[in-house]
Amino acid sequence: MRALRKTSRGPGAELVEVEVPAPREDEVLVRVHGVSICGTDLHIFDWNEWADRRIARVPMTFGHEVAGTVERVGTEVHHLQPGAFVAAETHIACGHCGPCQTGRAHICQNLRILGVDVEGAFAEYLVLPATNAWVVGDGIDPDVASIMEPFGNAVHAAFGTGGGEDIATHAVAVIGCGPIGMFAVAIARSLGAWRVIAVEPNAYRREKALEMGADVALDPGTVDPVASVMELTGGAGAEVVLEMSGNAVAIDQGTRLLARGGRMSLLGLPDADVRLDLNDQVIFKEARLQGITGREMFRTWQQTTTLLSTGRVDVAPVITHRFPLEGFAEAFATTAGGQAGKVILLPHAGAQR
Amino acid sequence: MRALRKTSRGPGAELVEVEVPAPREDEVLVRVHGVSICGTDLHIFDWNEWADRRIARVPMTFGHEVAGTVERVGTEVHHLQPGAFVAAETHIACGHCGPCQTGRAHICQNLRILGVDVEGAFAEYLVLPATNAWVVGDGIDPDVASIMEPFGNAVHAAFGTGGGEDIATHAVAVIGCGPIGMFAVAIARSLGAWRVIAVEPNAYRREKALEMGADVALDPGTVDPVASVMELTGGAGAEVVLEMSGNAVAIDQGTRLLARGGRMSLLGLPDADVRLDLNDQVIFKEARLQGITGREMFRTWQQTTTLLSTGRVDVAPVITHRFPLEGFAEAFATTAGGQAGKVILLPHAGAQR
Amino acid sequence: MRALRKTSRGPGAELVEVEVPAPREDEVLVRVHGVSICGTDLHIFDWNEWADRRIARVPMTFGHEVAGTVERVGTEVHHLQPGAFVAAETHIACGHCGPCQTGRAHICQNLRILGVDVEGAFAEYLVLPATNAWVVGDGIDPDVASIMEPFGNAVHAAFGTGGGEDIATHAVAVIGCGPIGMFAVAIARSLGAWRVIAVEPNAYRREKALEMGADVALDPGTVDPVASVMELTGGAGAEVVLEMSGNAVAIDQGTRLLARGGRMSLLGLPDADVRLDLNDQVIFKEARLQGITGREMFRTWQQTTTLLSTGRVDVAPVITHRFPLEGFAEAFATTAGGQAGKVILLPHAGAQR
Amino acid sequence: MRALRKTSRGPGAELVEVEVPAPREDEVLVRVHGVSICGTDLHIFDWNEWADRRIARVPMTFGHEVAGTVERVGTEVHHLQPGAFVAAETHIACGHCGPCQTGRAHICQNLRILGVDVEGAFAEYLVLPATNAWVVGDGIDPDVASIMEPFGNAVHAAFGTGGGEDIATHAVAVIGCGPIGMFAVAIARSLGAWRVIAVEPNAYRREKALEMGADVALDPGTVDPVASVMELTGGAGAEVVLEMSGNAVAIDQGTRLLARGGRMSLLGLPDADVRLDLNDQVIFKEARLQGITGREMFRTWQQTTTLLSTGRVDVAPVITHRFPLEGFAEAFATTAGGQAGKVILLPHAGAQR
Repeated sequence: MRALRKTSRGPGAELVEVEVPAPREDEVLVRVHGVSICGTDLHIFDWNEWADRRIARVPMTFGHEVAGTVERVGTEVHHLQPGAFVAAETHIACGHCGPCQTGRAHICQNLRILGVDVEGAFAEYLVLPATNAWVVGDGIDPDVASIMEPFGNAVHAAFGTGGGEDIATHAVAVIGCGPIGMFAVAIARSLGAWRVIAVEPNAYRREKALEMGADVALDPGTVDPVASVMELTGGAGAEVVLEMSGNAVAIDQGTRLLARGGRMSLLGLPDADVRLDLNDQVIFKEARLQGITGREMFRTWQQTTTLLSTGRVDVAPVITHRFPLEGFAEAFATTAGGQAGKVILLPHAGAQR
Repeated sequence: MRALRKTSRGPGAELVEVEVPAPREDEVLVRVHGVSICGTDLHIFDWNEWADRRIARVPMTFGHEVAGTVERVGTEVHHLQPGAFVAAETHIACGHCGPCQTGRAHICQNLRILGVDVEGAFAEYLVLPATNAWVVGDGIDPDVASIMEPFGNAVHAAFGTGGGEDIATHAVAVIGCGPIGMFAVAIARSLGAWRVIAVEPNAYRREKALEMGADVALDPGTVDPVASVMELTGGAGAEVVLEMSGNAVAIDQGTRLLARGGRMSLLGLPDADVRLDLNDQVIFKEARLQGITGREMFRTWQQTTTLLSTGRVDVAPVITHRFPLEGFAEAFATTAGGQAGKVILLPHAGAQR
Repeated sequence: MRALRKTSRGPGAELVEVEVPAPREDEVLVRVHGVSICGTDLHIFDWNEWADRRIARVPMTFGHEVAGTVERVGTEVHHLQPGAFVAAETHIACGHCGPCQTGRAHICQNLRILGVDVEGAFAEYLVLPATNAWVVGDGIDPDVASIMEPFGNAVHAAFGTGGGEDIATHAVAVIGCGPIGMFAVAIARSLGAWRVIAVEPNAYRREKALEMGADVALDPGTVDPVASVMELTGGAGAEVVLEMSGNAVAIDQGTRLLARGGRMSLLGLPDADVRLDLNDQVIFKEARLQGITGREMFRTWQQTTTLLSTGRVDVAPVITHRFPLEGFAEAFATTAGGQAGKVILLPHAGAQR
Repeated sequence: MRALRKTSRGPGAELVEVEVPAPREDEVLVRVHGVSICGTDLHIFDWNEWADRRIARVPMTFGHEVAGTVERVGTEVHHLQPGAFVAAETHIACGHCGPCQTGRAHICQNLRILGVDVEGAFAEYLVLPATNAWVVGDGIDPDVASIMEPFGNAVHAAFGTGGGEDIATHAVAVIGCGPIGMFAVAIARSLGAWRVIAVEPNAYRREKALEMGADVALDPGTVDPVASVMELTGGAGAEVVLEMSGNAVAIDQGTRLLARGGRMSLLGLPDADVRLDLNDQVIFKEARLQGITGREMFRTWQQTTTLLSTGRVDVAPVITHRFPLEGFAEAFATTAGGQAGKVILLPHAGAQR
């Protein structure tokens, strides 16, 4: 089969021919329908400092936001049959550490990640632990299924580590409207937010945020987002801030536009330490800052499936480009260009699933 | 009556003779039994930069951690009678803003604070809004009643903005063992913590922390608290960190010794912005940082009353010094000296309550 | 002014002329715009066994679901001005008991209810404690404001004593679709429920439930609601059941159609003890049954205001009849007839507000 | 090996010789140290109506509250080694249903129970799914390990489906003080309850409840528990009721002695439907009734391990009798007699573990 692999510890990747992998007892072989490109994949493709430090395994097929059809199951897999259409939970948890044993496998102490620590999904076939294969069910388009993983990040950020009870009837600010932020806008809207305020410097993305249901999309290059949010909320601030940018200035602004007693979910990854005014913006306001990573297994997937299959959220505007596997160079360039939502590679493009 | 007042915008205070104040319709007049000295009072006494910026009203009687006997009630006060022994909730809330109307009066948008914004308690008598007078009930020593307010800070930090369900059976680190930290150690112990680990550079305070029930008291000047907590918790870290120091290095260490998925309550006030490694210590760990200020009205007071009246927590070791009102200079010096727990001024010392 | 009063302990009521009441220090005088009729008002009008046992005060003006314009404020009322348009929280709490002091004033131990324990609202003017007057704000029609109180019951039932985090993306069954059930259907829909299933024997009300957003409206007279809900939910049952009927058979069915681990909010009042299969329907399923009464002060009002002012919920289809005060007999008959949603009395009909 | 088996669908059991079972790929073979006797085992031994309806598999070894040493592991078990001392989680979950996938495996839709649905533990050896073997760790006596499963029931009831945040500083009533009730008394005490009130008609058990830390043990045969609890709580009632009796009268009383807004955990299994006054005892009080079954996997086990290994709870007074396997008849009679706490069978008694 063809697979897009890192073959050296440097920029780029090669489309090469490798053997179709064989599933072990508790694994399944998946015929890949679509794999969408994540910011992490860009870092690995470009081989930035983070990738050089983080990736131990080269050569390796990368890519992880994937959906496809189960082709074969291991001997100990009894709850899945060939033919099932599945999306991949990309966090492979050990199942035995403290977090795993208390229902928080997504922060497993021994976490391995598909396409980062183990062989990934930019290929015609993929092997997955059976427990990481989520049956997609009816009503979700196969292309959409390939973005369930990043959509799940947005769902998890919105619901938070509690139950998301602060979204309904409240003002929600989404800072940073790349694809996950675009998703978050629509999710907050569908959960009954009072006002959804997007903050994003890129005009293309602001437009997408409005299309996904934002009441207003602020350009932090031309207006002060703190003052604007205060004005839009009668001086109270946003009860919930979903921080998707990882930008230090934006994170600081996020704490300032957060309401007294509010919650800020931090998902965007800053590339250095961040200075915060804990005194006035966290302590006296009794703000809560909560880190968000991955997706709850599998509460987030149940929520994701419902939101997408019922049409509560329509992600069509965010899936902007599709390429065959051999178009990977253009696909990566498009993703990096900032004038795209999600870009999907279709390894069997032309064939029917 | 005698009252200890700021009479100029500079260091020091004067013990002067003023009229006994008269309660308005919805206020009560309290004959002060004891007033304990808070770090805030030291700042006001010394008139540091914060005090100069924060205090608008001079001359003013300061002091706020107070308990005493209701002497007279306003015409519209029906639930309190003269003779009741009360402690003061020092946060005077407006009752009508968003936080007040949703059960979070302690983060009122129009908060005024006793002895900071309005006339305080270092005096023989004090006027209080009736709603801020908490009836102490039986089983709590009058001297102890005068520290219920800062004890309540520790209770609120321990329970957090949720329900404190992460204390029982878990490791709890208390960073900074001034009086509120000392209280927090005992509270965590009484709520069923697995291990209570104190972190404090001052030897006198470490000793007090052990006396209050810490399993171990680490000196961050001689051991690495992060490595030590990891070792004491089998590599998992502390599920709960109660940050009472306000020290930037300690806050950073607190995030590092926090367990994956853990909660850090921030109560100590840093005097500048703080740099945090949000990436590895908050986001990937899904840590929750929550600001803590004041006390929930009046859930915290109910909890405080139970803990103190049943003897679940014995604060006697923390109340180390008592002075008459005229001994205020020595009282402030003792508080500032670092070899003391709580220092109480007794305006009617010698008299019986 | 004219007021509709119970003048004897028996069926009926009289429209009589009485003095406009004067507000005390902490009260406001409200010029009534509209008062909607509650099931409780019907019981008082008919003077059934419950009314005879519950109502101590006769003669008394009854009615409580009210909105109007502040005409005059007491001397101690500073946060409200004449001209403000307000709706009444009808639970008058003492402010000093355990529940009141821990943020649960709606279950005050000394609760008094407008139009039941104290003079009510079927009149041209009404006196209210200032703390019970909720400023309605822009964007809510005055007629709609008069049903904010029962709408709040539905909001409180939906959010429950937690945060309503189980509504979004889940199946919700609403049992009993009188006006509060009709509201609950729309609220569950706007909070992102997966499926909203109404159960109601009255065809008129089933139609209204569908109009308010139910996916399906089951007639328990012709289908088994337990089997139907199981089928509609893939065998799992409803994650949330909102019980609005008070019917013993329906309550039992509600426990049976509830999912494992689900939550059932009980708001409808049964008129006798109810037999439940605690073993199989509660204990082995780990179901949660939670009583619901009144509205959280004032979290529920903030939620209600947002839902109504943003158009997330449109209650127009539920407000089916309007009468002047002198049409009270027809208004009560219409309410009792089962072919109506909410019926509103307009004491100043014809005049402009 | 010797095993105590049901060999016919009627009263009694036979101690017979069977083959030592062999673990499959994902199972472990455990050399049994101790098995304690549960009320369920009594029903199976006596073969009451419930047992006849519930038990499909005869002949079968029964018993399930078990701890022992891993002797051999299946080929796919990598996180456990021979020599590990483990206790058994007796609920065998499917891992793939809705509750399993959302962190609630203990209410799995396809639950199988050790010694009820599959071969049990009254034997010298036992085969367990590896995921059901909890490593006991240091500091817990092997005999105590055999009661971790029922102790976990009490832990789960105390913490409830939330976080047990209502135990600390509140009044807790434990109704029914068989072994699980005795455990619950000590757990509530160790979590910082204000008052722990036991209600139990059997004098032997009341004595044990006091020994485990109850402040008072009420005999419902001689005092009215509702009036007594009201008196002991200043008229407020118990914030938390842990119902362990399954007795219909006691359950009704539990709702009456519950505080406004309180929580009642239902664990005891009534043998018929129960009549409840939902109106006054649940709805107007906003009480929460929550079913409790099994143990959360594995939050409850982590909590159980901490409580027992730190000595926060000492269960020694509850383990009152030990018998070799051949003493089973006397062991069952002792359990049934009402003058015992936990009775443990030791299949290898005399041998060293």
